[in-house]
Amino acid sequence: MRVLGVDPGLTRCGVGVVEGVAGRPLTMIGVGVVRTPADAELGHRLVAIERGIEEWLDEHRPEFVAVERVFSQHNVRTVMGTAQASAVAMLCAARRGIPVALHTPSEVKAAVTGSGRADKAQVGAMVTRLLRLAEPPRPADAADALALAICHIWRAPAHNRLQQAVAQHASALKGRTR
Amino acid sequence: MRVLGVDPGLTRCGVGVVEGVAGRPLTMIGVGVVRTPADAELGHRLVAIERGIEEWLDEHRPEFVAVERVFSQHNVRTVMGTAQASAVAMLCAARRGIPVALHTPSEVKAAVTGSGRADKAQVGAMVTRLLRLAEPPRPADAADALALAICHIWRAPAHNRLQQAVAQHASALKGRTR
Repeated sequence: MRVLGVDPGLTRCGVGVVEGVAGRPLTMIGVGVVRTPADAELGHRLVAIERGIEEWLDEHRPEFVAVERVFSQHNVRTVMGTAQASAVAMLCAARRGIPVALHTPSEVKAAVTGSGRADKAQVGAMVTRLLRLAEPPRPADAADALALAICHIWRAPAHNRLQQAVAQHASALKGRTR
Repeated sequence: MRVLGVDPGLTRCGVGVVEGVAGRPLTMIGVGVVRTPADAELGHRLVAIERGIEEWLDEHRPEFVAVERVFSQHNVRTVMGTAQASAVAMLCAARRGIPVALHTPSEVKAAVTGSGRADKAQVGAMVTRLLRLAEPPRPADAADALALAICHIWRAPAHNRLQQAVAQHASALKGRTR
């Protein structure tokens, strides 16, 4: 299972590719940041992010794309840019028929550190350990993108079981109303 | 001057094309709504909006695209979808090299009704009058998209004068420091 994690942002959009299955050691395939100049026009910044994401999809051919779910509650100043960058990432994936999953920051933190309230340093340290890297990926956006990919790989079995259960429940209900 | 106005939204994305110059009667070229099903996956909805906007750009070849500026302060529940739909519209325009302008809802209301606090009915009534339509465009998102295009045409001269003034001031400063 190869997953591209995307930590969306206009100035720095973290991207990281991880391969593996739950319960086995994971492998980092690539990590980086798509940057756009803060003084460029918004439309041009979105085009640059699209180009960057497309390059990562072309090069690494992930089977899933995991994007951080953006909430409007916090970071009011930057949340619009984050939402817009995440839209571009989701669009690029969906256009190719790649399934997109959204994970909240606390789901990601809980998956890699065991605590939904872990700080950036803890997430970086655990990503480094889990992927057996020599040092934490920099900047933090790059580490967060890898954490998203790891979270997706580890949550996938539970997620798939949940979807199966929902589907079975729905077909059972259907049978009952017939 | 031909402008595509976009009132961004995931469920209903209003689109309207207006042609004209400030100080002369304006002409509506087209109006409509790009809809996406609320139960579809977010990535697929963004792809559908991209396809819809592309069709409008292909058919009407606007010289400018005017998009409503989204604020994170109000409508917390729907603001993320609005930001994501607006990102797709800006991306489509910028990819073709079409300049994108953002106007706030109060700028648009003030431009077409004289008051930044006008309600939907007033905006619809003024759009109907200004474009000499038989009846107000429905739904309101379609009327809002036309209002955005009208706002852009009417604000453009002031906007251009402002940009010229800034450029002249910058070159004057440059001259002084030489």
